[in-house]
Amino acid sequence: MRTSPMLEHLMEALRCLPGVGPKSAQRMAFHLLQRDRKGGLQLADALSKAMTEIGHCKECRTFTEEDVCNICNNPKRCENGLLCVVESPADIAALEATGQYSGRYFVLMGHLSPLDGIGPSDIGLDVLDFRLQRGDVTEVILATNPTVEGEATAHYIGELCREHGVSASRIAHGVPMGGELELVDGTTLSHSLLGRQKLS
Amino acid sequence: MRTSPMLEHLMEALRCLPGVGPKSAQRMAFHLLQRDRKGGLQLADALSKAMTEIGHCKECRTFTEEDVCNICNNPKRCENGLLCVVESPADIAALEATGQYSGRYFVLMGHLSPLDGIGPSDIGLDVLDFRLQRGDVTEVILATNPTVEGEATAHYIGELCREHGVSASRIAHGVPMGGELELVDGTTLSHSLLGRQKLS
Ligand SMILES: [Zn+2]
Ligand SMILES: [Zn+2]
Repeated sequence: MRTSPMLEHLMEALRCLPGVGPKSAQRMAFHLLQRDRKGGLQLADALSKAMTEIGHCKECRTFTEEDVCNICNNPKRCENGLLCVVESPADIAALEATGQYSGRYFVLMGHLSPLDGIGPSDIGLDVLDFRLQRGDVTEVILATNPTVEGEATAHYIGELCREHGVSASRIAHGVPMGGELELVDGTTLSHSLLGRQKLS
Repeated sequence: MRTSPMLEHLMEALRCLPGVGPKSAQRMAFHLLQRDRKGGLQLADALSKAMTEIGHCKECRTFTEEDVCNICNNPKRCENGLLCVVESPADIAALEATGQYSGRYFVLMGHLSPLDGIGPSDIGLDVLDFRLQRGDVTEVILATNPTVEGEATAHYIGELCREHGVSASRIAHGVPMGGELELVDGTTLSHSLLGRQKLS
């Protein structure tokens, strides 16, 4: 748009969104300018707040604007001594939606991937180590994705649990191999929680 | 994300973008938070500037942050007396890219659509009427989309030109019927400009 450097800049900026190329950036910019300026301004506000104020929970590493998220802060969620380890905050949303789990979480924000240089401390296993030492976790449920990396990560954390004398289980049947946890339907996910198998 | 109302709000706000559902909104929010906070902040800034400062050119109605856009402001662009009428600012970009047109534009920001209550003044034909009266336009090139509404709009504007004794032509062969102008390749579009046919 040579008639508007500001519009050109907006189309460029929209391309930071995954899956947005030049054509969809133009479509989005025109749509907002012609039909939804209010929505565009609300998005600007939500973005700048989220980018500056959302951090990670000190306890579980999920996204939150608080120091400690409201799941970790809820005393009822530590009564059963369960800690469910997941790869991403989206997995928490999926597990919460089943209504089958009332323990706490630990979010790796990824998985072990030695070839990409992602080792234990990059996925917060030093923090997890500290939590296992603290003694309030009686069982770790390994809910990493059923991919090669997810399995390897679960195995690694299983060993860590064994060192600390903490019981570890892996969510099992129901989750299709090679799939992603957050895409699984609630019933399947409920089954995989109930049918978890002891590792150590 | 019950652990972050701010993140929930961001995912909601992202859905003002066309083609973005709950799943892609989540994917976009996580991507920005985990990998591109700087890009997210730049987008916030570009959005708020664009939504508040971009208006329409007084002369041609295209998007611009100036009173009059830099095409209308360029004295060289009125030397040939041509005025090309298009439906959307994206069409200007497509026509400029051909390098075959050096006149001015008029952007309807839509087309006549009586069933949707969109009449002549909704697409700026009162402004166009004024411009034709002014006498500096010698030929109007009707480059609306080759759809039913685009054809009807071109016909209506052709009549308007006749009333003002201004010659009108319709871009013709090359643009596939039922297609959208902005999606046509440059060569086809060049041909359709050169092969325009006189209406009145
Ligand atoms: Zn937490
Ligand atoms: Zn203009």
